[in-house]
Amino acid sequence: MSRYFPEPDDYGRHTVFGNVPIITYAGQQIQLSFVDLPADSVVDWHAHPQEQMGMVITGRARFQIDDEEKILGPGDMYRIPGGVRHRVTPVETPCHVIDVFSPVREEYR
Amino acid sequence: MSRYFPEPDDYGRHTVFGNVPIITYAGQQIQLSFVDLPADSVVDWHAHPQEQMGMVITGRARFQIDDEEKILGPGDMYRIPGGVRHRVTPVETPCHVIDVFSPVREEYR
Repeated sequence: MSRYFPEPDDYGRHTVFGNVPIITYAGQQIQLSFVDLPADSVVDWHAHPQEQMGMVITGRARFQIDDEEKILGPGDMYRIPGGVRHRVTPVETPCHVIDVFSPVREEYR
Repeated sequence: MSRYFPEPDDYGRHTVFGNVPIITYAGQQIQLSFVDLPADSVVDWHAHPQEQMGMVITGRARFQIDDEEKILGPGDMYRIPGGVRHRVTPVETPCHVIDVFSPVREEYR
């Protein structure tokens, strides 16, 4: 077993918000989550104590963070301080986003 | 000015290891760095106290972390605990990697 390179079984695999598959990998303070947003998906309003940042890799998605809203495309980054409510919906699919949390979200391991 | 969505001027832009451009964005505990590894680049052996994790987005790169070595391609993730030496060289370009640091590396803001 590698200390640094995950094997397929080392990734966390979850389905969130009904139909959104995520693939996760956690370190000590950092957790990565690769998100594949289906066309009809809605990551509806929610908040969590962990800070979240990320970047759109493929496609486009509408990010609503508190009272701000922006459509992000490949290479665009965002940040969500802990406790700030947010909502994400895909605009152009396939839509892949890399989300990063700190500290780790235990429920996403 | 947005609190959550960086404008072009809000990104950090640096050239590291001689010829490697990076685009960075820092939150409180998380820092993202989008790395574009040129074909002849070498991110030579180094270490830093911050934890580092990341994922290859495009292309392939050889990651050497302490005494382990692996070629990573799109979607493959890695983790480097703070203080562990590592070296990265592209194998197939264009090679884009998203690196994540926690805490923030002040020199990369």
